[in-house]
Amino acid sequence: MCTVEKAEPFLLVNFKTYLEATGKRAVELSKSIEKVGESAGVKVGVAPQFCDIERVAASVDIPVFAQHIDSIRPGASTGHVLPESVKAAGADGTLINHSEKLIRLADIESAVQLAKEAGLRTVVCAGTARLAAAAALSEPDMVAIEPPELIGTGRAVSKENPEIVTDSVKRVHRVNQSAAILCGAGISTGDDVYAALKLGTDGVLVASGIVKAKKPEDVLANFCDAVLRLK
Amino acid sequence: MCTVEKAEPFLLVNFKTYLEATGKRAVELSKSIEKVGESAGVKVGVAPQFCDIERVAASVDIPVFAQHIDSIRPGASTGHVLPESVKAAGADGTLINHSEKLIRLADIESAVQLAKEAGLRTVVCAGTARLAAAAALSEPDMVAIEPPELIGTGRAVSKENPEIVTDSVKRVHRVNQSAAILCGAGISTGDDVYAALKLGTDGVLVASGIVKAKKPEDVLANFCDAVLRLK
Amino acid sequence: MCTVEKAEPFLLVNFKTYLEATGKRAVELSKSIEKVGESAGVKVGVAPQFCDIERVAASVDIPVFAQHIDSIRPGASTGHVLPESVKAAGADGTLINHSEKLIRLADIESAVQLAKEAGLRTVVCAGTARLAAAAALSEPDMVAIEPPELIGTGRAVSKENPEIVTDSVKRVHRVNQSAAILCGAGISTGDDVYAALKLGTDGVLVASGIVKAKKPEDVLANFCDAVLRLK
Amino acid sequence: MCTVEKAEPFLLVNFKTYLEATGKRAVELSKSIEKVGESAGVKVGVAPQFCDIERVAASVDIPVFAQHIDSIRPGASTGHVLPESVKAAGADGTLINHSEKLIRLADIESAVQLAKEAGLRTVVCAGTARLAAAAALSEPDMVAIEPPELIGTGRAVSKENPEIVTDSVKRVHRVNQSAAILCGAGISTGDDVYAALKLGTDGVLVASGIVKAKKPEDVLANFCDAVLRLK
Repeated sequence: MCTVEKAEPFLLVNFKTYLEATGKRAVELSKSIEKVGESAGVKVGVAPQFCDIERVAASVDIPVFAQHIDSIRPGASTGHVLPESVKAAGADGTLINHSEKLIRLADIESAVQLAKEAGLRTVVCAGTARLAAAAALSEPDMVAIEPPELIGTGRAVSKENPEIVTDSVKRVHRVNQSAAILCGAGISTGDDVYAALKLGTDGVLVASGIVKAKKPEDVLANFCDAVLRLK
Repeated sequence: MCTVEKAEPFLLVNFKTYLEATGKRAVELSKSIEKVGESAGVKVGVAPQFCDIERVAASVDIPVFAQHIDSIRPGASTGHVLPESVKAAGADGTLINHSEKLIRLADIESAVQLAKEAGLRTVVCAGTARLAAAAALSEPDMVAIEPPELIGTGRAVSKENPEIVTDSVKRVHRVNQSAAILCGAGISTGDDVYAALKLGTDGVLVASGIVKAKKPEDVLANFCDAVLRLK
Repeated sequence: MCTVEKAEPFLLVNFKTYLEATGKRAVELSKSIEKVGESAGVKVGVAPQFCDIERVAASVDIPVFAQHIDSIRPGASTGHVLPESVKAAGADGTLINHSEKLIRLADIESAVQLAKEAGLRTVVCAGTARLAAAAALSEPDMVAIEPPELIGTGRAVSKENPEIVTDSVKRVHRVNQSAAILCGAGISTGDDVYAALKLGTDGVLVASGIVKAKKPEDVLANFCDAVLRLK
Repeated sequence: MCTVEKAEPFLLVNFKTYLEATGKRAVELSKSIEKVGESAGVKVGVAPQFCDIERVAASVDIPVFAQHIDSIRPGASTGHVLPESVKAAGADGTLINHSEKLIRLADIESAVQLAKEAGLRTVVCAGTARLAAAAALSEPDMVAIEPPELIGTGRAVSKENPEIVTDSVKRVHRVNQSAAILCGAGISTGDDVYAALKLGTDGVLVASGIVKAKKPEDVLANFCDAVLRLK
């Protein structure tokens, strides 16, 4: 019997560095996402670029995540991303170790620790089931399993490679019973989301599937329907 | 005879990741800096953290610089700093290759090019006279010479090592007659600024000397006096 | 009751990039190390620089480790360290993720895998107990716990911070019962080695304590005595 | 009139991390290369992997280059490539900043300097004409211009993009009259070599064109013929 209490499903939209989600368009997209989530009663969040965090956070009431933080304390670190700065801009949390911004093993533990000290929740990303477990050892709030080879393909990890998802869930739970588990890579339809949740995850991390969609609201509404089907 | 036309002296304050210049304090400090510069009639600018660019740019009318950009085009680059994003937040320019955020030679030329395409002015930093010339070959708007061993020491490059400044000016002008030249590292008094300008530079890049000062306005007013003495 | 079968204690000497252990001196030092180990009946090994692996391996019959490999397959990777190349030079294994050559979490699993495919044994290093467990998840032959703040100090981890060693042993065994555990940082006397083994480790990873010693053979003989005291 | 004295043409073969040029096969290939060069009276050299430098250097009398060095002095730099170590293994020189092992601008000047101190000749690589000039400012013995987009394609830079070669020659000579200039990327026939030399270069840097050829000796003999046609 699985004694891990399930978190409420969470749909987190990573804006990456897409122009469709930069500047004012980051604010507009965040508002749309908030609206769809609210209307469906599903928990949604956004991860805009650093320069957009402040205005996005000022415009919506959903969780806002940074896409990365550096493992640094305040001081002489020109050009780096200070956890306290991300927090001061209004972020609730941060991604760590995204496959497009991989960090050293030694920095993962300290990044999670520094984020916590700054009052930020953490999503540590990993590309394989074993790495997801290694990520979980740093005691983040969430682990996101995203096989890099599927990212941006439109072929959903939850359908193309369900084993990696179930294996990740199993391995993560073996070392950490409290971290929620997201899954990502290729998620583009409600069915992909439904499959992900059925495999034991607590939500999805999605990017191009929403941001590059012709009608992001419609795709997200679809995702929300999938969440509701499971409730 | 030196035929290089001198630019108006420029005092650029790098906020690094100091807590004294994070979030709301970045806005307050920027306003103070603007006020002192305006009152003295001296050109001043600020380089806040990424997350603070938007609110700083919305609060002051002086040039705002990012501390770094990544050499990327819009797309799937989670956690990176897109030049267009920096511009959309209201920045006028960006530092490139600061000694605390060194980049690869191959990326300097492309960073300058991408910044230009995004409508950003560029300050490429270098730690030695030869590297300043190499930086100048990428045709940035400004080159900043900052010997890393003096950064944050309070011992000003313009007084401790005037040869590196004059040598940088000479070597930069040999390969690029239009780039302005800033100098930095250890600048903390008006005399340091005066010395820097006398050595042929067009301004200074300063950080802790202002940001960590008990009364940043007073130190900056001092810097401005030094500029006016030379006019 | 601890059901983990103990490996024979192993003393691995990392030559780093010390001139005292470069070129011909790498060969001489390796021969001395072999001689002391043989005479005491204690298992010893060396980790010379890449350029010295071949001649060291040709000169001694003790295990020779590379100090790093890159996570690459044969091909167009100028300047990188191919596992097959290290093997072809005669190495038996390799360090991975030494605190002076940290790698990304995502590369640790693949480095271990590629090393195995090339016929190399693996020692994954980690600076904290949690990271040691994360390292153990990649299923290396050995995990080495080395708090970076003690490296090169002469203050031994096994005496200064025994908790980190016992905690590492516990956390590693929780996720991996077969990996041997080395400990390092500051090891410079036989007592340090004795303490390390008593804390449940299977050996030590030592560098300056031997390489920079006036009489490396004497120090190593001391280490061997400590091992024998425990047998 | 060009007053730059031309160096004797030089054909440098980069072994990268190809299995065809690893271990014993690195030695065999080097011997073949030496034989062809000797028989034609053309200056040839090889750049094997770190682990193979010693046995290659012991087997041939042609120049042997490392593929990279780190900008470090002797000490605690586990897993790095010490210039003195490369020299002790018998190398005559080293590549620096190959497009597959790019380094930071700030490290190029120090890498060249440290190589000189260790008695190694230097070839600094660059992907564009401007970067070639920046590389030349560090005063290496040679600059190699290799547009990364053509590397490994079999489409030779000297034929596909002759302008980048002539522009590089012009820009390098403007800032450094003594550095020899190699060109690389896609070089696979004698005609490619002939074209490169006619454009004002002093030789070629070649990899797959020789290493992956069915009969490397025949291809190299072809290259040598092209050199002789120009004498």
